[in-house]
Amino acid sequence: MFKKMATVALCAGVLLSGMYVNVGFNEAEADHKEKAGNANSNEKVKNVIYMIPDGYNADYATNYRWFKGEKSSFDPYVKGLIQTYSANSEVTDSAAAGTAMATGVKTNNGMVSVSPEKEEVDSILDAAEGSKKSTGLVATSTITHATPASFGASVVDRGDQAKIAPQYFDNDVDVILGGGRDYFLSTSEGGKQTEGNLIEEAQKDGYEYVTNTDELSKARGEKVLGLFSDGAMASELERPETSQPSLADMTDAAINALDQDKDGFFLMVEGSQIDWAGHANDAAWAMHDSKAFDEAVAEAIEFAKQDGKTLVVVAGDHETGGMSVGANGEYDVKTEILRDVTASGAYMAEQLNDKRSNVKDVVKEYTGLELTDKEVKQIKDASAADSAINKVISDRALIGWTSGGHTGVDLPIYAYGPQSEKFNGLLNNVDIPMIMAEAMKIELEN
Amino acid sequence: MFKKMATVALCAGVLLSGMYVNVGFNEAEADHKEKAGNANSNEKVKNVIYMIPDGYNADYATNYRWFKGEKSSFDPYVKGLIQTYSANSEVTDSAAAGTAMATGVKTNNGMVSVSPEKEEVDSILDAAEGSKKSTGLVATSTITHATPASFGASVVDRGDQAKIAPQYFDNDVDVILGGGRDYFLSTSEGGKQTEGNLIEEAQKDGYEYVTNTDELSKARGEKVLGLFSDGAMASELERPETSQPSLADMTDAAINALDQDKDGFFLMVEGSQIDWAGHANDAAWAMHDSKAFDEAVAEAIEFAKQDGKTLVVVAGDHETGGMSVGANGEYDVKTEILRDVTASGAYMAEQLNDKRSNVKDVVKEYTGLELTDKEVKQIKDASAADSAINKVISDRALIGWTSGGHTGVDLPIYAYGPQSEKFNGLLNNVDIPMIMAEAMKIELEN
Repeated sequence: MFKKMATVALCAGVLLSGMYVNVGFNEAEADHKEKAGNANSNEKVKNVIYMIPDGYNADYATNYRWFKGEKSSFDPYVKGLIQTYSANSEVTDSAAAGTAMATGVKTNNGMVSVSPEKEEVDSILDAAEGSKKSTGLVATSTITHATPASFGASVVDRGDQAKIAPQYFDNDVDVILGGGRDYFLSTSEGGKQTEGNLIEEAQKDGYEYVTNTDELSKARGEKVLGLFSDGAMASELERPETSQPSLADMTDAAINALDQDKDGFFLMVEGSQIDWAGHANDAAWAMHDSKAFDEAVAEAIEFAKQDGKTLVVVAGDHETGGMSVGANGEYDVKTEILRDVTASGAYMAEQLNDKRSNVKDVVKEYTGLELTDKEVKQIKDASAADSAINKVISDRALIGWTSGGHTGVDLPIYAYGPQSEKFNGLLNNVDIPMIMAEAMKIELEN
Repeated sequence: MFKKMATVALCAGVLLSGMYVNVGFNEAEADHKEKAGNANSNEKVKNVIYMIPDGYNADYATNYRWFKGEKSSFDPYVKGLIQTYSANSEVTDSAAAGTAMATGVKTNNGMVSVSPEKEEVDSILDAAEGSKKSTGLVATSTITHATPASFGASVVDRGDQAKIAPQYFDNDVDVILGGGRDYFLSTSEGGKQTEGNLIEEAQKDGYEYVTNTDELSKARGEKVLGLFSDGAMASELERPETSQPSLADMTDAAINALDQDKDGFFLMVEGSQIDWAGHANDAAWAMHDSKAFDEAVAEAIEFAKQDGKTLVVVAGDHETGGMSVGANGEYDVKTEILRDVTASGAYMAEQLNDKRSNVKDVVKEYTGLELTDKEVKQIKDASAADSAINKVISDRALIGWTSGGHTGVDLPIYAYGPQSEKFNGLLNNVDIPMIMAEAMKIELEN
């Protein structure tokens, strides 16, 4: 569907020979009407779906809107801005941000659901669990990565992923979908054990265990463990569709499993790799993983529309890369060239021969772009070919970057459903779980 | 007042030897309560004060919050995001943005209050004037620059500033405060005339004419023409306080003049030079002009709080420079070093001798920073010393930039007062004047 649309849009672009095609403008009125739909304000929220696009801010949102050719599924529901600083830095990492967004407590960078004094704190997932709701975690990274971990585990060092996996079962997380199978097969001390350790225990404990797209689509249990790769899942650009489900597939499956609980559910879904694309300054990867996330949010909102008692909240945890919309003094954006890119810069770099003499062919094959001699030289001369390829593509798309790390800019927060207006204004990341708890009328005290 | 606070904050920083000082967090609760104050929603709005920080987005807002050590006067009133693209580009200039924000019509970059077909269109200022309200324009650029011009004049080319000045009088703009005296002394054909042309005519027509801070503070008329420099006014860093009033002074004076009209008023106030600082990638200039703007908004909100019938709207027209909060892979922000900077990069560059051998002393004198040998070399070797100085200072402050031009990111929109909740959600810049007209119950049709 998307690919067809993109092709049509590109053709239109050619026909109009570079003329500006107005998107978004005519939708403004419709959005305003739709917003009135967030009515029944005081109604108790039964379910919360918390969607976290790791690394995503207003620049990603704007670039993605041009890339898609229309608004994202959540664009119309922006409510305000959130401040993201951590307890020990103006620029947070994903562990401190995840902790703030999960528990309402600011901690130091690197720490997962513990206070700066290393005391364990409860998360909104724990609180939902405590009030008999079902709970789920979905991510495209290892499912034991900092953001999902903040909801289902407590560790002083985010690197201790093997200590995180068993806590998900101790904390009764009902649906666990993502990458990171390796961390379910080793002890918390780090030593490898025979296959089947945590996974077999989970199966004995009633979890349906699935490992590919087809199996996931057929899962019918209330408790599902889906591990689709040993480490992180593939980027959306390079995802093998039969062995690894999309983020939308996983979101859909998680909702189906969790919605069987008459007491309601709490689900966290992370678009993990938008952040990794940002770290790599890989504009195409960032846009394609934003698309995967957008499609997952569309599933959540569709469910919320039907259900009427579900609050969907979308908020990034920090910005990654210092991305801009336009760059280098040019008053233009060309994200449409990223639609046809089919590989990350890292993947393309791996296809280069020792002398990088095939760079023109490789880049042409995976991006459709004809490199200039200057660009070829830029990539050949670079110390890191992947960064150089990403730089050339970003310059073509007119996307700028200022960092290989995170930045501290306030992020848009989006909400759909009952009580969504509670997210209006300038919030702090720690406010989010508190508002969710209030909306579900459950207790979260830290 | 500000300087004292900044000093205290810096001392605290030293005492805590680099420890993170939590700002903003404890204010969250208070803000939430204050927001409830935007009550009387359906009440007709008598006055609108439209504050435009040229070039300002969420990155400026976040960096400025750390620079100030607390929230800006308008931070708590964020309502949503606005899309800024123009009729012919994803990245707008200030003329097309000003036109959209003044008239509700998207036009091509460079055009001032005309459609892409070059037909004149009405602005919210015209509509207010038509319903007997008084009107005013305030800016720190020439008052005939693109943004204010979009409200009070129509020209196909924003460069025709001499054609803009006379139209302000044709359109009965009651209060005109800013720079650009030269454009009031020449004909619309561009030839210089004797002093007193438009200015003398204005005085005959009942305008009080003022040219410095003291005169402005004593103005008591309903119609005031204040021109404080031949061209643009000085940057806030280098403003001569007796000859040039601050933006807050001008805002206060404009409100006092306009509030004499029992039918109400429309006032546009631009923080013009935040944009120029962005073009120069001059982080200190950007922060100090953001401070001047913040103080002007504080005046407007203070008036609105007392008055109860005034809607204050704050929205940038586009982002400038691709600024980021943190940069170069470091998870930190050091905007506090910009508090003691007392000159722009351009001014410092002018103080260098031919061989730039005094660079260390010059930078030390105006910034308090001790340059490293590497930084000295960077500036000495640079083709443009001003850019090189700005780069060094930005790197020290950990502020990144991706462009010397504008970028196309969605911008936060802030509103205070009755009907301010109408600015919730994802808006388009063209929606703003329409919502203002609706709030004032006046007609704006284009």
